[in-house]
Amino acid sequence: MKYNFEQWHGFKNGTWSTEISVRSFIKHNYTPYDGDESFLEKSTQNTVDLWDKVLDLFEQERKNGGVLDMDTKVVSTITSHAPAYLDKTKETIVGFQTDKPLKRALMPYGGIRMAEKACADNGYTIDPEVKEFFSTHRKTHNAGVFDAYTPEMRACRSSHIITGLPDAYGRGRIIGDYRRVALYGVDRLIEDKEEQKITTRSAMYYDVIRIREELSEQIRALESLKEMALSYGFDISKPAKDTKEAIQWLYFAYLAAVKEQNGAAMSLGRTSTFLDIYSKRDLENGVYTEAEIQEMVDHFIMKLRMIKFARTPEYNQLFSGDPQWVTESIGGIAIDGRHMVTKMSYRYLHTLINLGPAPEPNLTVLWSTRLPENFKRYCAKISIETSSVQYENDDLMRFTHGDDYAIACCVSSMRLGKEMQFFGARANLAKCLLYAINGGVDEMSGKQVGPKYRPVTSEYLDYDEVIEKYDNMMEWLAGVYVNTLNIIHYMHDKYCYEKIQMALHDKNVVRWFATGIAGLSVVADSLSAIKYAKVKAIRNEQGVVVDYEVEGDFPKYGNDDDRVDTIAYDIVHKFMEHIRKNHTYRESIPTTSILTITSNVVYGKYTGATPDGRKKGEAFAPGANPMHNRDTKGAVASLSSVSKLPFRDAQDGISNTFSIVPSALGKDDRILVGDLIIDFDCANGSCATPTLFDDLDANDE
Amino acid sequence: MKYNFEQWHGFKNGTWSTEISVRSFIKHNYTPYDGDESFLEKSTQNTVDLWDKVLDLFEQERKNGGVLDMDTKVVSTITSHAPAYLDKTKETIVGFQTDKPLKRALMPYGGIRMAEKACADNGYTIDPEVKEFFSTHRKTHNAGVFDAYTPEMRACRSSHIITGLPDAYGRGRIIGDYRRVALYGVDRLIEDKEEQKITTRSAMYYDVIRIREELSEQIRALESLKEMALSYGFDISKPAKDTKEAIQWLYFAYLAAVKEQNGAAMSLGRTSTFLDIYSKRDLENGVYTEAEIQEMVDHFIMKLRMIKFARTPEYNQLFSGDPQWVTESIGGIAIDGRHMVTKMSYRYLHTLINLGPAPEPNLTVLWSTRLPENFKRYCAKISIETSSVQYENDDLMRFTHGDDYAIACCVSSMRLGKEMQFFGARANLAKCLLYAINGGVDEMSGKQVGPKYRPVTSEYLDYDEVIEKYDNMMEWLAGVYVNTLNIIHYMHDKYCYEKIQMALHDKNVVRWFATGIAGLSVVADSLSAIKYAKVKAIRNEQGVVVDYEVEGDFPKYGNDDDRVDTIAYDIVHKFMEHIRKNHTYRESIPTTSILTITSNVVYGKYTGATPDGRKKGEAFAPGANPMHNRDTKGAVASLSSVSKLPFRDAQDGISNTFSIVPSALGKDDRILVGDLIIDFDCANGSCATPTLFDDLDANDE
Repeated sequence: MKYNFEQWHGFKNGTWSTEISVRSFIKHNYTPYDGDESFLEKSTQNTVDLWDKVLDLFEQERKNGGVLDMDTKVVSTITSHAPAYLDKTKETIVGFQTDKPLKRALMPYGGIRMAEKACADNGYTIDPEVKEFFSTHRKTHNAGVFDAYTPEMRACRSSHIITGLPDAYGRGRIIGDYRRVALYGVDRLIEDKEEQKITTRSAMYYDVIRIREELSEQIRALESLKEMALSYGFDISKPAKDTKEAIQWLYFAYLAAVKEQNGAAMSLGRTSTFLDIYSKRDLENGVYTEAEIQEMVDHFIMKLRMIKFARTPEYNQLFSGDPQWVTESIGGIAIDGRHMVTKMSYRYLHTLINLGPAPEPNLTVLWSTRLPENFKRYCAKISIETSSVQYENDDLMRFTHGDDYAIACCVSSMRLGKEMQFFGARANLAKCLLYAINGGVDEMSGKQVGPKYRPVTSEYLDYDEVIEKYDNMMEWLAGVYVNTLNIIHYMHDKYCYEKIQMALHDKNVVRWFATGIAGLSVVADSLSAIKYAKVKAIRNEQGVVVDYEVEGDFPKYGNDDDRVDTIAYDIVHKFMEHIRKNHTYRESIPTTSILTITSNVVYGKYTGATPDGRKKGEAFAPGANPMHNRDTKGAVASLSSVSKLPFRDAQDGISNTFSIVPSALGKDDRILVGDLIIDFDCANGSCATPTLFDDLDANDE
Repeated sequence: MKYNFEQWHGFKNGTWSTEISVRSFIKHNYTPYDGDESFLEKSTQNTVDLWDKVLDLFEQERKNGGVLDMDTKVVSTITSHAPAYLDKTKETIVGFQTDKPLKRALMPYGGIRMAEKACADNGYTIDPEVKEFFSTHRKTHNAGVFDAYTPEMRACRSSHIITGLPDAYGRGRIIGDYRRVALYGVDRLIEDKEEQKITTRSAMYYDVIRIREELSEQIRALESLKEMALSYGFDISKPAKDTKEAIQWLYFAYLAAVKEQNGAAMSLGRTSTFLDIYSKRDLENGVYTEAEIQEMVDHFIMKLRMIKFARTPEYNQLFSGDPQWVTESIGGIAIDGRHMVTKMSYRYLHTLINLGPAPEPNLTVLWSTRLPENFKRYCAKISIETSSVQYENDDLMRFTHGDDYAIACCVSSMRLGKEMQFFGARANLAKCLLYAINGGVDEMSGKQVGPKYRPVTSEYLDYDEVIEKYDNMMEWLAGVYVNTLNIIHYMHDKYCYEKIQMALHDKNVVRWFATGIAGLSVVADSLSAIKYAKVKAIRNEQGVVVDYEVEGDFPKYGNDDDRVDTIAYDIVHKFMEHIRKNHTYRESIPTTSILTITSNVVYGKYTGATPDGRKKGEAFAPGANPMHNRDTKGAVASLSSVSKLPFRDAQDGISNTFSIVPSALGKDDRILVGDLIIDFDCANGSCATPTLFDDLDANDE
């Protein structure tokens, strides 16, 4: 059935008019912008006033030890709190997570102990009835997980060979397609969900029952979303009629998600080019001025900067800060060849000037060599001025995910409303190598954690022996790891299901089963040392190898030397092969990533000395980076080593933290600082999942 | 490992000493008793005093409108309430469901609305915070079920073609092997469960995760059981040392179950012969006198009579009273040929004299022609004096379930600790016949409920046409019915899992998927009328057949006339065949039953006129009974018709309500009044599930 909402007046029809497809709407209606930034407007007085208030609140928060206020009684739901405002007379975009700006919500579905500790560590005490209820009658994700864990899984967790598992916090990395609410209004989305419910399979196998229940939960979440918006005075049952409503509707949808879920990464999606269609129409029709539109964007971004969760110091330590990863993906190239930069892309980046630099929202440019020159130049300029822009390789990801994907967290790409990710943190491959050498005995605790395979008994390590043992140990580790994640995601669905986020997805969602690797360069260099130098094992009285002496030099990863780069390639490839041997929950597709951007420090802390000469407790290199100071052949050689890694085996992302001084590139307006996804080789096509790509809205081209 | 608890002194070893097997313990240690009832003792003064108190409480309860007190705030768990007593100085067996005798517990896991209504209908108001919590954060079985139901399922439910579904109340019909607690103590049972957890499959498929979580829940429930007993001053971590402890331990286990679950039928099991082993040892060792032992039994039974749940008037109407079905199975024959009557069997029945007659506990004699004459005579005597004994055919059920099964509810047989049942209420086969005639249109509401098959359009009904249409409609009904039950049991496991009851089961439990049939004799007679007389269809203005005129006579079920008895046979067989075509939840084994002992009145009320001449709204016959006054050939012919039904297709039980005046049998001491399971033909062996039988503790013979 073709819908014809009055709010759609002036939009070109497409698949999107009959089916839920924001991508089709964008494709048929957006206008690429090749001009420069000269149209941008400064912040209005209202924006300045509001931002001053926010800065003041942030200051109070800091003085208060990091948290301004916490809810200890009302358990957060989409509708649990009354509206809150900064200054109702000045805000063009409204809505807070609780009934007071920056007041952290109480979210115990993930785990009551975590919620309790987050309160306690900030000097608050959770209401005893709430605690009792969530301990006795309302099981949490965390409680469910620990009921199913095996002793082996617990041992792996305690010894940190598997780390950062989302078993006590929200898995995150699910992006609701929040734009749908603006484009269709909630009623149309409910109608769609009702239709999805009608078309489930009719024999009631457990998976059919599960999806039927989930769809019912999703519909209720959409009803709650309407109710919440209404409490702010907005009827969002129908589509948004202009830019202001579009931003507001979209923000309400996102707000509902962060009221419901304290996910590790609550990313926003790819909203700028979508919204540009509204603002262009409004500008043409004289509905709003550029200054008014920029004001709305500024207020919207201001709200996103104020998204906060109640978290424990340990959590913040692991993630080096208090991140929400409100990632917004900007730019990129459409698969019809047009670039997707619009005026709204500029407006988003311009908030870094109007409001000043900030890590959140995590504004991420989907970089392509084919982006318009003006925009590239503007990005560079903003990067130089604010150091607040992230860049990712659209030329690479577009091939797999098309042109309506976005980044969740820092690098995880997924098609909006069509794909989601089961986040899986990391396996410590460096520790795994030590287990291979020590026959599964942990080098830090002396405990038997891995299987009792035969340890290396010789004084000097033999490459062939070690590599064979390592392969066996990786196979074991991959098995425990995947099974642990299976439990986590089963329980997350059971006790902490993302109702509103999944309500803003299609029915048949592709689920990525994201594993991750830590310590890659340590392993590559260690194996290289064993192969090309002489490595002597130093054993303690228990017979466990606890240190190594390297005699002679060896090729090191990060110098474009195939002798060791091949080893790195093989490790990633083999580990992923082992991962693939295992059943993954809910027909999810296994991937891996090499991504430890900050947590590499923590992983290193819990890992003994390694055969590459790294000492016990020393930090790993982040992500796929070479170890510090070992890439001695210059930036290009270093990048080249990283680029050889097989993206098809690490499709969830390979990160390389890379800082360069301006003069290194000979120019000063093209500096990119941050984490890059790099895989230059991938354009040959071996790295994608073609079925997904072929399937992409084929009837809408 | 062989255990050797000091509490086991004097017991003969067997499989039970190393594995959890109460049956093996009984087999190796029980002593059949062939004597008469002359050893029995009267009630003690303490018993009289206590029972007076109970009678007084019952009287107060009646005066109060049926309920003495209700909990509206504390949600019931095994440990939620402080100990309660009638008179601590006089009670030999202690323990109540809440902190006050007869105070009904608040149990919202099944459904918050049901719990709220049960309170409201009795003049109580549920605590608003509890209501809010169970509406918002803690989903219930009922809420889950309705999230997954299809519109068709709801329509079938509303039109009463499927009735009495356990979707708003506990499914019941699960008997924990409460004896295990007495024999082994809780710690040994926990040890066993820990071992079961270790031996789950290692790849984490959803079913493995599910069982691991359930085993963890079971272990926690066992810990709670210990804690609850300790609050009464008993350490039940170790085995019971004598009769008193054995009864007390066993009762605590049962009490934990009724604190946790408000199941439709919370049956006790088969405990008398088990306990006799303790009392025989105590009598021989002079630990207790017969009077003391009888006192304990009296007090135990007194407690069972006081088991109550908070239920709604509608529930009580459906089940014609306020039943708990605390069914205890007594007697029967062992598969080694010895009868299983002991002195304790007498003592149990004797409580009907010491305390007077009562419907609960539902004392059920597992009848065999091979029971000792003295016991048969005693049973007859007690039946005459109290009308409170139920009899079931052990010769029939032993073949399928061995000699350690018990009756759950009224007739559902299951091996203790090894089998459980997914209860499924009934499909109304009489209404299904009317749907066949009316092409799926409900004869009462005029709504299209069933599939839009071609209706009968002729004035006079043609047998071949009707039978073909009926077969198709039964196939449809069986499908909706089984799928509805799949949802119910999935959600019951998810939101209202029977932790302590399943903790008292083996790990690998056989699950019976119990469907049920209502209106059998109505259908048989209707089809007979169509075949052997002339049946004219009377249509309303909508064209729906709403009445029938029967011209001429026809053979009626209940007269040993094969012409119609074959029809009855075919219906049961065909319906069960259709049931078997469907996937059943959790690898359960489909069965059916013909059991509507009281609810036949309600089913009839919602069913239009039928071709046998039965008028709209008139009651069906109960269970497999012939319709009232149509069995004109005498009792033997009537019973003979019922006995032709295929037990292999209705393994959950066939009931025949049958009252006879003493003189009809020519003697006055052999009167059996009540519901009988009758299938004389079954001894030829075609009715059992041989694999289950062969599997029965084979290594313990």
